[in-house]
Amino acid sequence: MQTHLFNTQRLKEILPQIRNFVKEELYPLEAQFLHNSFRSLEPLLAEKRNAVKKAGLWAPHLPEKDGGMGLTLVEFAQVSEELGRTPIGHYVFNCQAPDIGNMELLHKFGSAEQKEKFLNPLMKGELRSCFSMTEPGFAGSNPVMMSTTAVREENSYVINGHKWFTSSADGARFAIVMAVTNLEQPNPYTRASMILVPTDTPGFIHVRNIRIMGEAGDSYNSHAEIKYENCRVPIENLLGPEGAGFKLAQERLGPGRIHHCMRWIGICERAFDLMCKRAVAREIAPGEFLGNKQTIQAWIAESRASIQAARLMVLHTAYQMEVEGQAAVREEISTIKFFVANVLQTVIDRAIQVHGALGITDDTILAYWYRHERGARIYDGPDEVHKAVVARKILKNYGLESK
Amino acid sequence: MQTHLFNTQRLKEILPQIRNFVKEELYPLEAQFLHNSFRSLEPLLAEKRNAVKKAGLWAPHLPEKDGGMGLTLVEFAQVSEELGRTPIGHYVFNCQAPDIGNMELLHKFGSAEQKEKFLNPLMKGELRSCFSMTEPGFAGSNPVMMSTTAVREENSYVINGHKWFTSSADGARFAIVMAVTNLEQPNPYTRASMILVPTDTPGFIHVRNIRIMGEAGDSYNSHAEIKYENCRVPIENLLGPEGAGFKLAQERLGPGRIHHCMRWIGICERAFDLMCKRAVAREIAPGEFLGNKQTIQAWIAESRASIQAARLMVLHTAYQMEVEGQAAVREEISTIKFFVANVLQTVIDRAIQVHGALGITDDTILAYWYRHERGARIYDGPDEVHKAVVARKILKNYGLESK
Amino acid sequence: MQTHLFNTQRLKEILPQIRNFVKEELYPLEAQFLHNSFRSLEPLLAEKRNAVKKAGLWAPHLPEKDGGMGLTLVEFAQVSEELGRTPIGHYVFNCQAPDIGNMELLHKFGSAEQKEKFLNPLMKGELRSCFSMTEPGFAGSNPVMMSTTAVREENSYVINGHKWFTSSADGARFAIVMAVTNLEQPNPYTRASMILVPTDTPGFIHVRNIRIMGEAGDSYNSHAEIKYENCRVPIENLLGPEGAGFKLAQERLGPGRIHHCMRWIGICERAFDLMCKRAVAREIAPGEFLGNKQTIQAWIAESRASIQAARLMVLHTAYQMEVEGQAAVREEISTIKFFVANVLQTVIDRAIQVHGALGITDDTILAYWYRHERGARIYDGPDEVHKAVVARKILKNYGLESK
Amino acid sequence: MQTHLFNTQRLKEILPQIRNFVKEELYPLEAQFLHNSFRSLEPLLAEKRNAVKKAGLWAPHLPEKDGGMGLTLVEFAQVSEELGRTPIGHYVFNCQAPDIGNMELLHKFGSAEQKEKFLNPLMKGELRSCFSMTEPGFAGSNPVMMSTTAVREENSYVINGHKWFTSSADGARFAIVMAVTNLEQPNPYTRASMILVPTDTPGFIHVRNIRIMGEAGDSYNSHAEIKYENCRVPIENLLGPEGAGFKLAQERLGPGRIHHCMRWIGICERAFDLMCKRAVAREIAPGEFLGNKQTIQAWIAESRASIQAARLMVLHTAYQMEVEGQAAVREEISTIKFFVANVLQTVIDRAIQVHGALGITDDTILAYWYRHERGARIYDGPDEVHKAVVARKILKNYGLESK
Repeated sequence: MQTHLFNTQRLKEILPQIRNFVKEELYPLEAQFLHNSFRSLEPLLAEKRNAVKKAGLWAPHLPEKDGGMGLTLVEFAQVSEELGRTPIGHYVFNCQAPDIGNMELLHKFGSAEQKEKFLNPLMKGELRSCFSMTEPGFAGSNPVMMSTTAVREENSYVINGHKWFTSSADGARFAIVMAVTNLEQPNPYTRASMILVPTDTPGFIHVRNIRIMGEAGDSYNSHAEIKYENCRVPIENLLGPEGAGFKLAQERLGPGRIHHCMRWIGICERAFDLMCKRAVAREIAPGEFLGNKQTIQAWIAESRASIQAARLMVLHTAYQMEVEGQAAVREEISTIKFFVANVLQTVIDRAIQVHGALGITDDTILAYWYRHERGARIYDGPDEVHKAVVARKILKNYGLESK
Repeated sequence: MQTHLFNTQRLKEILPQIRNFVKEELYPLEAQFLHNSFRSLEPLLAEKRNAVKKAGLWAPHLPEKDGGMGLTLVEFAQVSEELGRTPIGHYVFNCQAPDIGNMELLHKFGSAEQKEKFLNPLMKGELRSCFSMTEPGFAGSNPVMMSTTAVREENSYVINGHKWFTSSADGARFAIVMAVTNLEQPNPYTRASMILVPTDTPGFIHVRNIRIMGEAGDSYNSHAEIKYENCRVPIENLLGPEGAGFKLAQERLGPGRIHHCMRWIGICERAFDLMCKRAVAREIAPGEFLGNKQTIQAWIAESRASIQAARLMVLHTAYQMEVEGQAAVREEISTIKFFVANVLQTVIDRAIQVHGALGITDDTILAYWYRHERGARIYDGPDEVHKAVVARKILKNYGLESK
Repeated sequence: MQTHLFNTQRLKEILPQIRNFVKEELYPLEAQFLHNSFRSLEPLLAEKRNAVKKAGLWAPHLPEKDGGMGLTLVEFAQVSEELGRTPIGHYVFNCQAPDIGNMELLHKFGSAEQKEKFLNPLMKGELRSCFSMTEPGFAGSNPVMMSTTAVREENSYVINGHKWFTSSADGARFAIVMAVTNLEQPNPYTRASMILVPTDTPGFIHVRNIRIMGEAGDSYNSHAEIKYENCRVPIENLLGPEGAGFKLAQERLGPGRIHHCMRWIGICERAFDLMCKRAVAREIAPGEFLGNKQTIQAWIAESRASIQAARLMVLHTAYQMEVEGQAAVREEISTIKFFVANVLQTVIDRAIQVHGALGITDDTILAYWYRHERGARIYDGPDEVHKAVVARKILKNYGLESK
Repeated sequence: MQTHLFNTQRLKEILPQIRNFVKEELYPLEAQFLHNSFRSLEPLLAEKRNAVKKAGLWAPHLPEKDGGMGLTLVEFAQVSEELGRTPIGHYVFNCQAPDIGNMELLHKFGSAEQKEKFLNPLMKGELRSCFSMTEPGFAGSNPVMMSTTAVREENSYVINGHKWFTSSADGARFAIVMAVTNLEQPNPYTRASMILVPTDTPGFIHVRNIRIMGEAGDSYNSHAEIKYENCRVPIENLLGPEGAGFKLAQERLGPGRIHHCMRWIGICERAFDLMCKRAVAREIAPGEFLGNKQTIQAWIAESRASIQAARLMVLHTAYQMEVEGQAAVREEISTIKFFVANVLQTVIDRAIQVHGALGITDDTILAYWYRHERGARIYDGPDEVHKAVVARKILKNYGLESK
């Protein structure tokens, strides 16, 4: 199935290039990715990054003047799908979370100095960053509940608090930290700010890479627990206005969710491809293959349908966001967030079942996604919260007051 | 949610008109439609048909030269959604199944005489027709299995056979009948032909309007069991070439399934609207409404997501069909057939549950659709067959031989 | 599959008898039941009732001294399953809702006079009764919200209010009416009472048999809307103490839900049987039957599993209720209520799908249950309420306060 | 919820003891189990095993004369649930797969010498064993397809072949190997035999512990790939008669599936307990807890219902197996296999979702089961095969021939 309607001339040229690169250059690294540390893979990945740069495919989301491809969101979404077919795709093209979101924030809200110091090397891929918002003690879905504080003392902010799921902090050179700066504000949504914190600042304490689904990971491929203990940075490190933390977080999360969704569709397509290959290769009786069985056929058809539905939903949302702006598509973004995450989980699960015992091993990439994308229904807002957000918006139009 | 991308200038003008007409003129007839015979409603419906003609909205699917609106398929799909919001919408705009499919067949394959005699009055809404294919003894999904025969005797075909689910045969002036004319053909797909049979032909025996979900219905709103006993028509009544029955049936069913899908989305939207209205109106404790409950919110959000997914799938398929032709979208048509039918059933079910006891009564339109659209997962091919068709097409590309 | 563990000696004798009677004597009446009024069937049903009495199978739930079989609840549950295989089973054996619940109430709480006047003829099957609790304006799940009042004036109660879903009111000789008698009570659960109201009392107004899923029904097979307009009955007609309405309702609903559940399992088994018969009879290609297809096989296996699960859940609950009393199994009763209702809906839906077009006609009994048991997830408390009840009970043990 | 019906006097005494032991002695070891090698935990586990022996709770499935508790299958099933609440429970009580199945085989079919040499030390917990049947190249569900051969040469069998998912082979002292000994047999089910192979036999090659869901594991907690290269054992090592391999495998798998099911129910109960604890502890807004939300409540109620259904299904099957023998409950065993495995996956998934980000970390035990029990729907026969087995058995009674 295709999405002709969204297929621009530029995409017709670059998509096959990218697809080919991913298949030829990155799939072969997956076994290594699965069985070794990320750090040990970095030299090889650096080579691939150079190849991407040479091919003119670097940072597809960035403007051309910043060294990127200057794609529209609808175009980038389709590139992102291709990259999502392997866990290292976005990294190699320098459009990986959390850096991509940090680039957007710095691009929109950074001062000239911040851009010089933090954004430029990020865009060139010279360093990595992280985003430090989630706290272990509080539900991320409720922004009022945040304990980390940044107290102004003369020309500094002194940060104290406890964060976790600060993805890719291991080896990152700076963090963007959400902290309460204005506790006295009556509107709780204007209490927090974003602050740039170099990770070598005293008081930035990397407690551990959290073991997630059996793996602590390392370097880019990890999620850290961080403590901030009297961590002092100059006030110039404030990103955007004081108290604008939640506004900026919203700005960051909107496109971020679209990016996740398109990446997930890439995962779906890869899992779908593996499922089909297995269905035609696995003989269950002489001359009879898994793909001849009606149950397997039903899974394939249902998966094809739901992946296509997911893709059209995401592309249409990206299209609307381009035309009408982010504020106009908040409901749509929440909708695709939970919709696509569930398609993802279902497709991966079916692909594993079709593989039988092989499916739960690390001899294919499926089990990696099975365990590490279980979070898709949780991170950036759990399904239940997004559904409630969508429904309350709809019911408000019918006259219901929120409770 | 909207589908801006598919919204043409013409639609911006006519959709609000049609929506308004349906709401103001047709919703008020629904109680009568539910509680009385269709025949008793026909005079009123005739008035509404005239109003539609006057408003220039008649037969949106037909070319302007034939008295229609000349919409593209993508445009008509969106009109069809509006009409689908009430069970009498398509009828009043003269684009109801099975007549719409018969118009297409006659338009494409009818001789000049057939057009004059059968098509023209159909387009004007002067008479109704039916399509007689399904047989009680055989699985409709397997075209090889058909028992009705049309034997050529001199200048006539003599038809013998047993059909059912010949929708709207009660009161129809002619039927298009599928019958085996060329049993000796080695390719079973070239054995049957389509033949035009006026319903007053001797040997056309209307056995009964089948009781479906408790209601036999009448007139347009019915599904008949028909026997053909030495039913003789002139050979000029052959529609298209001899042996082309299945080819023509495919031609008819492709767009037919798109029409069903868009109509179903209209039903979904109406059910969704009723669900939301109920959610904000039903107080379950002082000051607490159904719409405040998280389960109801989840149903609303999930319904919104799946309806939007369904709509985008259908519109995109219609778009592709316009651009690339019907043959190119067979997989897509099978996909939307089962996908949308299941969205439909789920949304109706949830809307009923939100209504509580009221939902199972005929005091709303929901229970009508609950019972009469249970067939959506069966008619024009059951889910299971469409899924197998899609999967086998996909797996063929992976090298699997069909069994 | 069987449930040997619950199979008493008495059951080994009577179950085959009852199964045979239902099959030989009642199945053949179903076509008539579907296509004609209930009243027209009553003479035939009266004959069958006599046959049941003669066979010593009358009123299996009643003590032997009252003319019944004196079965335990676990035994009756299994009889009830057999009777549930046809929509007229319980009626013919005089253990049909709502009369069975009314018998229980009168048996436990009726005065000697009330028993003489109301209970005895009910047990003999000489008249029918109804239970008038649900109101159109208020959520049945919240007992505080009830508008019908019974005001004491000297030696009478004067009842005013509006009820619906008063099942079988058409032709019933008396109603048990829930009405607020003690509005001033601070505890809202002690405000209502149950009052016996002969249906020929002035002010008892049968507004209509509500059209449910296309059918208003009649006589026993109907659900009425009732208005009470200054409906005056003597205070002797109070059933149980004043203010005990909800307590009695609880007493009535507990076993009532077990009865529904076992009846539903009977429906499941019948639908399952029809599904299997169809699966082996429907040829979809020469020599290939529906039952050879893996999807159909999966439905059959999953249905068998979930029906057996449902049965064991219900029998175990009945067993616990016998041993420990009704108060001990409230959580279990809520659990089986939603669990079995959902098994029921799924099994019926699959059976219809396996029947294809035939499944939505009234040529089998399936479509009747499809439409009339959609209510199973709503009546006697919607799924959502029962789930919340169960969860709150569980979470209370973990220290959560109810909200 | 409880299952009083199956609660014997003996269970009333020992279940609380065991529950307490598991909670007090084994839960505290889980963090270590998750984060370190199994081998490093073995000294501690050996202490716990001694404590179990002293408490008289050793090997609950074995006859008392063999040092066990002599429980019935129904009793052991309930013990097994308690042990299943932690991944190390069965191991500590010496009733862990695959050893328990091997004990049963040796007990029933072993020669006196085999019992002396292999069974006795196994029962005492002095050594471990493994079961080597599954092959990477062939679908385990089709016994005809097996490539490993054991060729008789004088007084030896010479085994060649390739196996994987030979659980716990790492550190095991012997394997029971399925190999084709009688290829010429027309009945494919009589071609294979079981042979006892000490793991220090030359030609028994431990290729690797397969990485499953990111973890290769070690010692007892691993699944090996094994090659047999001219692996020669004396013919006395034949277990049971030659050609009886599949018969013995059936004997082994029947109770084995019941054991798995009860263990899974233990996992369900633990996950359920963690879910409830989280629901009452996680505050999402001041004074509002997760457990107050209707969606969470629904998950809790649905989980409670389905766990109880699963338990009753398994206990009833165990009961039937005791009374009627294994051959009588094949359909039931296949039924519980797929039914309980799906309950398990759903309950774990919900428990994780309720935990949010914490749920995917290894800070609780949930993520371990999420990844390592994904196999439950695959090992010992995938769902699809068990469903087909059940359905074909049922449909055979309706007259369908198998295809």
